[in-house]
Amino acid sequence: MRNMAYVNGRFLPLADAKTSVEDRAYQFADGVYEVVKFYGRNAVRLEPHLVRLMESSAHLRIAGGPGLDEWKTIIEQLATENELVDDETNEYILYQQVSRGVAPRNHLFPKDAIEPSVVAYFRKAPVYSREQRETGIALSLQPDERWNRCYIKSVCLLPAVMAKQAAADAGCFEALLVRNGIVTEGSATNTYCVREGIVYTHPTGPHILTGVTRTLVFEAAEKAGVEIREEAVTPDQFAAADEAFISSTTMGIMPATRLDGKPVGKSGKPGPVTRQLAQALDAIVASELRGHEVTAK
Amino acid sequence: MRNMAYVNGRFLPLADAKTSVEDRAYQFADGVYEVVKFYGRNAVRLEPHLVRLMESSAHLRIAGGPGLDEWKTIIEQLATENELVDDETNEYILYQQVSRGVAPRNHLFPKDAIEPSVVAYFRKAPVYSREQRETGIALSLQPDERWNRCYIKSVCLLPAVMAKQAAADAGCFEALLVRNGIVTEGSATNTYCVREGIVYTHPTGPHILTGVTRTLVFEAAEKAGVEIREEAVTPDQFAAADEAFISSTTMGIMPATRLDGKPVGKSGKPGPVTRQLAQALDAIVASELRGHEVTAK
Repeated sequence: MRNMAYVNGRFLPLADAKTSVEDRAYQFADGVYEVVKFYGRNAVRLEPHLVRLMESSAHLRIAGGPGLDEWKTIIEQLATENELVDDETNEYILYQQVSRGVAPRNHLFPKDAIEPSVVAYFRKAPVYSREQRETGIALSLQPDERWNRCYIKSVCLLPAVMAKQAAADAGCFEALLVRNGIVTEGSATNTYCVREGIVYTHPTGPHILTGVTRTLVFEAAEKAGVEIREEAVTPDQFAAADEAFISSTTMGIMPATRLDGKPVGKSGKPGPVTRQLAQALDAIVASELRGHEVTAK
Repeated sequence: MRNMAYVNGRFLPLADAKTSVEDRAYQFADGVYEVVKFYGRNAVRLEPHLVRLMESSAHLRIAGGPGLDEWKTIIEQLATENELVDDETNEYILYQQVSRGVAPRNHLFPKDAIEPSVVAYFRKAPVYSREQRETGIALSLQPDERWNRCYIKSVCLLPAVMAKQAAADAGCFEALLVRNGIVTEGSATNTYCVREGIVYTHPTGPHILTGVTRTLVFEAAEKAGVEIREEAVTPDQFAAADEAFISSTTMGIMPATRLDGKPVGKSGKPGPVTRQLAQALDAIVASELRGHEVTAK
């Protein structure tokens, strides 16, 4: 692939993709973003990502960004510019960001309408080995220090960065965030635990991001005949669960087998419900890719 | 003045001052900043700002930024490049930002050491009219939705932006932020109320930024023989106060005379303690500027 980016109507090498130091995303974290998984030129659930990008913009009253069709045209051209290999074994991620735009520094939204800064580019998707999927990843309990509007996918991500780094410093792959004694989600993933065959995950609301892959997990559960409940759990309940897993756009379902150094469940190995859901989710994605239901072609 | 900026060792027009779209401040709000007030070429309390910038960097483990002396050299040259008029009637602000740097997107700190992105530029200072200072500004109670590390001056400012905008939408100048039933500070200011001649402001800690001007307010209080207590108050106590004011680098002490449409104090006018402190603060600053105690000359 080539490394081409889209910036405000232009296609140019990612290395030259720059924005003003007075861009409000740079000075105020005043922007929103999406990450979309591609297999070859085929996106997984592109439209829900685009819709969420527009909803996030609306929550922040960022106007003037591309609409659904305009985004699809941009992405199609960007895929061509990047010479994406149209073969499902080539996995890419599309990063999209819309910020309020460039204006002399002032907390207040600029009085005069300004053009938002629109950025998109592809990169190779991170690789998760078969071994990692068979071993499962380790979680580390971390305080959820984020603000109260986690349902907005904004670039105000410093609290998530610090939590994920703290988890890594503790030798773990991801943080399991705890707010007011309740597990909310991961730093960049939704989180789930399984007790007596039933999957539990935090309900939608201000304290989690309603992930596109979370929705896929719900669909996979329905297909697999697994009950899934939007019920918050405590860290102790999570630790005492039979199984646990996390989900995100880039990794799909990933088993979580250790929490703060202790095994989750009796075995500390990926459990049967997690495997079942991962298979069901993969099947849904594969079927959609075969049907090119959503594509950037 | 000219509009010149400093970006990673180079001086160039602010209009050309750009950073990569993969700068971590742009994608993760992973950076810190300072705003310093200048009268002509003379800074108000430059060193405490520089020290705080380095402390903020240290809290986020951002290494490799300029040290104290290096910053002074950069600022001196930037003042020259900008042809700042060296006359105290010309007021400028210096904006400085240090981000972790540019790296392929990943929440985790880059494994290999990267150079931080270092940016600085001058702009004309915002003007607050004599009338505004004599009338005082209006405050609007807003929920404090920020994270739990407000003592770090990071660019993770979206919650502050949304609070200040909500205050402006309510016809007010600044938000009075409330967390767990307690007044913390403003969106970009520290806040104070006065009861029976005693000034109350939120104690230092994770929920406020310890402003450089807040320190000046404490010094002014000592000079003026006014008692100041680091005690949190409720919104009701704030509303029932005799006087109120806010402070920041750009505006110094500014009386706050209305809260959610109602007058603060009996008169709804700037009170005697506020005036006394503002005069004492101005005297300290004027004396330091005369002595060129801290300067970019």
